[in-house]
Amino acid sequence: MTGENSVGCEFSAEGSCLFQTFNPVKNKSNPTFFIEATIDEVNRAVDLAQEAYSILPTISVVQKADFLEEISLQILSIGDNLLDCFVSETGLTIERAIAERTRMLMQLNAFADLVRKNEWVEPSIDPGNVNRNPKKPDLRKMLVGIGPVVVFGASNFPFAYSTAGGDTISAFAAGCPVIVKSHPLHAGTGELVANAIVKAVMKTGMPKGIFSNLNAVNLAVGKQLVLHPKVKAVGFTGSISGGRALFDMANSRPEPIPVFAEMGSVNPVVILPESLSENNEKWSDLLAESITSGVGQFCTNPGLLLLIDSEESTFFLETLVTKVLNREAAPMLHPSILERFESAKREACKVPFISLHEKKGDIPINATRQTILTVNASVFMSNPLLQEEVFGPFTLVVICKSLNELEESVAVLKGQLTGTIMGSVENKEKYKTIFSTLHQKVGRLIFNEVPTGVEVCPSMHHGGPYPATTDSRFTAVGTDSIKRFARPMVYQNFPEELLPEILRDQNRMKIERRINGAWTKSDVHA
Amino acid sequence: MTGENSVGCEFSAEGSCLFQTFNPVKNKSNPTFFIEATIDEVNRAVDLAQEAYSILPTISVVQKADFLEEISLQILSIGDNLLDCFVSETGLTIERAIAERTRMLMQLNAFADLVRKNEWVEPSIDPGNVNRNPKKPDLRKMLVGIGPVVVFGASNFPFAYSTAGGDTISAFAAGCPVIVKSHPLHAGTGELVANAIVKAVMKTGMPKGIFSNLNAVNLAVGKQLVLHPKVKAVGFTGSISGGRALFDMANSRPEPIPVFAEMGSVNPVVILPESLSENNEKWSDLLAESITSGVGQFCTNPGLLLLIDSEESTFFLETLVTKVLNREAAPMLHPSILERFESAKREACKVPFISLHEKKGDIPINATRQTILTVNASVFMSNPLLQEEVFGPFTLVVICKSLNELEESVAVLKGQLTGTIMGSVENKEKYKTIFSTLHQKVGRLIFNEVPTGVEVCPSMHHGGPYPATTDSRFTAVGTDSIKRFARPMVYQNFPEELLPEILRDQNRMKIERRINGAWTKSDVHA
Repeated sequence: MTGENSVGCEFSAEGSCLFQTFNPVKNKSNPTFFIEATIDEVNRAVDLAQEAYSILPTISVVQKADFLEEISLQILSIGDNLLDCFVSETGLTIERAIAERTRMLMQLNAFADLVRKNEWVEPSIDPGNVNRNPKKPDLRKMLVGIGPVVVFGASNFPFAYSTAGGDTISAFAAGCPVIVKSHPLHAGTGELVANAIVKAVMKTGMPKGIFSNLNAVNLAVGKQLVLHPKVKAVGFTGSISGGRALFDMANSRPEPIPVFAEMGSVNPVVILPESLSENNEKWSDLLAESITSGVGQFCTNPGLLLLIDSEESTFFLETLVTKVLNREAAPMLHPSILERFESAKREACKVPFISLHEKKGDIPINATRQTILTVNASVFMSNPLLQEEVFGPFTLVVICKSLNELEESVAVLKGQLTGTIMGSVENKEKYKTIFSTLHQKVGRLIFNEVPTGVEVCPSMHHGGPYPATTDSRFTAVGTDSIKRFARPMVYQNFPEELLPEILRDQNRMKIERRINGAWTKSDVHA
Repeated sequence: MTGENSVGCEFSAEGSCLFQTFNPVKNKSNPTFFIEATIDEVNRAVDLAQEAYSILPTISVVQKADFLEEISLQILSIGDNLLDCFVSETGLTIERAIAERTRMLMQLNAFADLVRKNEWVEPSIDPGNVNRNPKKPDLRKMLVGIGPVVVFGASNFPFAYSTAGGDTISAFAAGCPVIVKSHPLHAGTGELVANAIVKAVMKTGMPKGIFSNLNAVNLAVGKQLVLHPKVKAVGFTGSISGGRALFDMANSRPEPIPVFAEMGSVNPVVILPESLSENNEKWSDLLAESITSGVGQFCTNPGLLLLIDSEESTFFLETLVTKVLNREAAPMLHPSILERFESAKREACKVPFISLHEKKGDIPINATRQTILTVNASVFMSNPLLQEEVFGPFTLVVICKSLNELEESVAVLKGQLTGTIMGSVENKEKYKTIFSTLHQKVGRLIFNEVPTGVEVCPSMHHGGPYPATTDSRFTAVGTDSIKRFARPMVYQNFPEELLPEILRDQNRMKIERRINGAWTKSDVHA
């Protein structure tokens, strides 16, 4: 570990601002000093990215897919050093490190397959017709990379949503060079993964400008990147304030660019009464695990439960509180994150008529006490502050007097990544307003499961109306996340030899293409 | 014609601000007084739209498709009155009115087909697997309407990109209610078309809140609409300053919403030397027609030609100038548009070393003199003002000393809807930098045809990097324009009876769905 930046795949350390990462379990700084990127290094990274962007369309899909697979091999070959580094910079367990590495590698391979198959470019052909009056032009469309992309690593996913995480990999797959603004809480993990990407670039002969990894503990580096005229899109995972600041910055440019920021969500869970007694144990187990796993540091953590007051719901709530508080407390990612948790909890507790249930007894250093607050629906509805995410092992339970009050409480919710309904199919008519209101608020509706555990697959949607994300039309997880970084390009009246191969008459790769609007594997027939 | 607004399909005229439209051929105001919508009427329109949005998911695709087709029948049944009104409010010819009506009706029917087929929702299913560890959740995704949409009618397309134009129809098709801010230059045409939509709403039993048509001559109505919390997306066609103002306004909201603004473009045409002499007549004919048709009032008007200085190119330019200036001058849409044309032309002419060629002799009232300016590449590159669109029958010819200077001139271009190359396949290696640079700047690359005549079909892309549009990932024309107003929604672990029919195991409609990432018409097999 050197603490240096990687600028167009070359080590660079011209700056004088140094910082260290922190081990929350040992409560001390890790040894390496990281060197923040300078203005020159940022400019060089972006210029090289733009150069690479011009070259990328000439590189074969096979080479691009090999590149993604090689990254996964290079990461794996780092071995335990990488896992140890992850643990030392997060306080998370080795099991979590292994699981998240698996997810990162799986994403790399999923995108390699996607690139190799090449259907994601959505080839679409409307052949010309000179006999029509007026003559019908020949139009052939496919998705192409949008340009150099800046990725802001997530604090809570050093592997899966940082250096070689979903944003970076989907941008690579789309044909975009990537400049990672490394997350300062896990700059070491970032550097090791960045080195693996650099090796993969070299080994597979990709243009070196395709990747840079820049260290930064101050905001200036990120700001310079987002405002740079050659940067064409931004991916971000983090807080609402951080995401909104980047979004506003990108939109203030002479040429605005899209920012996909995956931000805050309280992931409401509506617990319907009828099937509660029967499912008391099952649902309280599921929810207790979902609220506390990873020390609650997931964007799909269920931070808000809504239920109708009854004997069953009171008993359910007691069971849930017991199960949540009985779990082991564990260190959060960093003292600053713990501090933010405590502060957000304090703010929520200032609301009158709120009840606090929190873990008692001794807990490890830098750990937090998992917490459940309960509040009446009328108080909830009149205090918008209670809709703010408390990032950590926390949930707010809203107790409604009636179905009507439950409907009203759901109606005031802001945009969310997910919304969950615990209930039974039999009562769908009775609760249809709950279903339809939640439908307008979320990107993923869940029935009788919990929102954590975000599957990486084509049908995943990890997005949702603001403030869950800055654009509900895109996803941060799953192969469709590539669409954030791609734009359609049409070739009109292009002779065969000037067309990208995938748009030529002969369908050599035998993939699905839209011809005159219908999916087919056929060739184009004159 | 009443001059009233249509609020949730009911006539309403509570305001006191009146305005008239103008006949540029007769040089006098048309008789009807239009009543600008009030704050209350705007609020009512949006509230009704939100109510309709909640109901729309329960309405069948057949009913939605019938609604779109019924609009087309109702418009056709207005007959010549509608065409006469179009002509009286634009100064365009009756032939153009008929052609644009045909386009509007064709779009309605294309979207009706799209809705009926229902594949546009991109159904995607990843079946669950309880035997995997951890259990794989069942995920089923489709596109749903984003919410109430505000459409700003275009000045230059009273039919095809206004009241029942591409934006409105694609939003309806996506399942979104629409509030049209009628364009004040053709409020009468807007009212007649709006009445047809209202009749179609009634006849097919759609919720009345699905449509409102609001008159406005001041900016306040549009501003109130864009800032209304229940509005979820905006479609706009017009100037860069107008589009950018709406974009900034929408992004300043507590909850930002997407604005798709199709704005300015000069649609550069690069004329390569080798095949010029052979194609002198053909290309000058094509370009003269493209520059002047519709009095140059098209967003794909070729406003910039780039060529390398040579005997052939000098002769070509002379031919082109003659052909353009020999065409009949005709009135522009409105004196204010003429005034803007003259003013933009005057600004361009202030640049030193620029040569002016314009139509001479008598011209009709409110007509403009078609204009060609020529300038050296070095002057062009040092005057960014020359890249600004002059809306009308105008083109700027940039004369380059060398291929190198041509490449540099293309490199400084801003984002464009289209880029055209006139050349021959044989020289593709020589000009590969021209091709690849233009590729990064435009949404549609054209070879040996002209950019005007935007085909409505699945493979069209009418979009491009800023300032051509506010988001290069979306199109304003063609059936894919529906994606501007739709967002993915995932149903996790939903029992069959709670799922939308299109996501159930049995593929009753026999349409293409993605199952585990592969397109198929099969059912889901347990």
